[in-house]
Amino acid sequence: MITVAVDCMGGDHGPGITLPACQAFLAAHTDAQLLLVGLPEALKDFSHPRARAVPASEVVGMDDPVEVALRKKRDSSMRVAIAQVKDKAADVAVSAGNTGALMAIARYLLKTVPGIDRPAIATQLPNARGGATTVLDLGANVDCTAEHLLQFGLMGAALVSVLKGHDEPTVGLLNIGEETIKGSEVIKQAGELFQAAHAAGHLNFHGNVEGNDIYKGTTDIVVCDGFVGNVALKSSEGVASMISGFLKAEFSRSIWTKAAALVAYPVLQALKGRLDHRRYNGAALLGLRGLVFKSHGSADAFAFEQALNRGYDAARNKLLEQVQARIAKTAPQQAVDTGAPVPAELAAHH
Amino acid sequence: MITVAVDCMGGDHGPGITLPACQAFLAAHTDAQLLLVGLPEALKDFSHPRARAVPASEVVGMDDPVEVALRKKRDSSMRVAIAQVKDKAADVAVSAGNTGALMAIARYLLKTVPGIDRPAIATQLPNARGGATTVLDLGANVDCTAEHLLQFGLMGAALVSVLKGHDEPTVGLLNIGEETIKGSEVIKQAGELFQAAHAAGHLNFHGNVEGNDIYKGTTDIVVCDGFVGNVALKSSEGVASMISGFLKAEFSRSIWTKAAALVAYPVLQALKGRLDHRRYNGAALLGLRGLVFKSHGSADAFAFEQALNRGYDAARNKLLEQVQARIAKTAPQQAVDTGAPVPAELAAHH
Repeated sequence: MITVAVDCMGGDHGPGITLPACQAFLAAHTDAQLLLVGLPEALKDFSHPRARAVPASEVVGMDDPVEVALRKKRDSSMRVAIAQVKDKAADVAVSAGNTGALMAIARYLLKTVPGIDRPAIATQLPNARGGATTVLDLGANVDCTAEHLLQFGLMGAALVSVLKGHDEPTVGLLNIGEETIKGSEVIKQAGELFQAAHAAGHLNFHGNVEGNDIYKGTTDIVVCDGFVGNVALKSSEGVASMISGFLKAEFSRSIWTKAAALVAYPVLQALKGRLDHRRYNGAALLGLRGLVFKSHGSADAFAFEQALNRGYDAARNKLLEQVQARIAKTAPQQAVDTGAPVPAELAAHH
Repeated sequence: MITVAVDCMGGDHGPGITLPACQAFLAAHTDAQLLLVGLPEALKDFSHPRARAVPASEVVGMDDPVEVALRKKRDSSMRVAIAQVKDKAADVAVSAGNTGALMAIARYLLKTVPGIDRPAIATQLPNARGGATTVLDLGANVDCTAEHLLQFGLMGAALVSVLKGHDEPTVGLLNIGEETIKGSEVIKQAGELFQAAHAAGHLNFHGNVEGNDIYKGTTDIVVCDGFVGNVALKSSEGVASMISGFLKAEFSRSIWTKAAALVAYPVLQALKGRLDHRRYNGAALLGLRGLVFKSHGSADAFAFEQALNRGYDAARNKLLEQVQARIAKTAPQQAVDTGAPVPAELAAHH
């Protein structure tokens, strides 16, 4: 039995979408049970033999500063949900709340895995091959060292091998040119670390990739710092929404184009389906001593259910153990290989 | 009379596209003359009363390393074209050659404007408002300080005010959140410099923007370092090309969808027109003591003509003087305002 702790209050819509998603999730997974965390009043009408309410008296707002979420709202639904994972009452926690607060609370309560300096956020983006590319980091870490980037690569590989049963997923390092001479100092150093890890059999490193490779699906995983990842993601969303706006405007220009839209409707629906980011909802917070998944704040019930599915799959396939195993195998080795200024005993106890 | 020096050999296609573009350009601008730089053999069939061939014995290849372009090929068409600007024989140079080589040679021959540490590359991207957003830097500078970013903002403002007759264009600083607390250390410092410049009346600073704001058209100008700018651009291209691939695949799925494509054809053509990046071809190399414009390497004749137009407009509207005036007005002031570690005399002679 897999137990998922759900922050039912998080996101733009709260229980209005999280509870229907929980019902659908329970119906689809007979070996799963849910801990529904939230204000008792909001949960009182929900009833299912495999669900139990866990009360929380506060809610982290989407605009709450991290400090408020972490220091003031100590009984928030977000924090209580993560506490279930810490206390081993749940295998994984899922929340659609504010990303900064979620990462801060998760990090504070769960701590990082030995060998990991900084947790990362990994998400999936659709690619032209009809699959999805896993990209990390997406906003948790803005100033990264080469070692951090390598850790992201190792964690991303563990995530993809667990979620897709794909033993040696390929990893690309996001850069501005395929030649190794390009890029910033940190990226150049990271390229060397990735190559060393590849040579040691710790990682299937493809080499440098560029922004468009995310959507080509050149590699299973694309690694970058959180600033660059966030800009890539937001720019992509911007283009997609501009194109969709143009398409709408052109199809509603005249009675003729409106007729054309009717004829083209099934094609446009199929296009929409292919680009439906709701299918890929559910980003993993990696590098913590417990599993936490983040749903998009504006998720609807379908999208939130995907985030629950992803968290459930990760727990069932023992993502936590996989990440720890990969890091344990690699981290001390890397510290020696690369002459990184991390004494072996520090790496081991970190 | 405006004189444009054209590197006729640059780009993926060379004279096959640059020469037809030159013909069209000359027909459209009766107050312009061209210096056609290239291998004499390649230029021998071109004849126009307002065009003159300038021989060059070498060509910089699209894959040539910067060192080779700069140190070995001293009589390349790219270098000779830029030398026309240095020697005041031309007002502006335009090339579709390799970006790294173009920037290195331009910087070597022309030097930077006083007060500018690093030249930048500024391009235009279409936005949802039906206009274009000017984004810089796009690949010239990977590790930037806050002062560099401010200089990019000032140069971008000069460019847009000259090309669009728009006196106080708005400037946004690309970040990962609208709150000033987010972002890397460099971005936070840059935010303070931009605010000080705004307060001093040197710049119309809008505040932080995110990746999607490029395509929303939130500000006239978006400033970022070259690494982030390149990733944003490439990611955007990746999404656009994935969507266009999906659209083609869905429309060619069956005889019915093919019929729908015929009906929707005018709409799809209009969409294509709106997204046509060829219209925005012609990136400015800013911060040099001479005007240089860069065409996309894969430009066709129509696109290359746009780059010629852009260079011509910049020369006619005295972009160089505008950039210098803005920098001269602001740079020493900034050094005092911000307590930046640049002594006033250094800033003045830089």
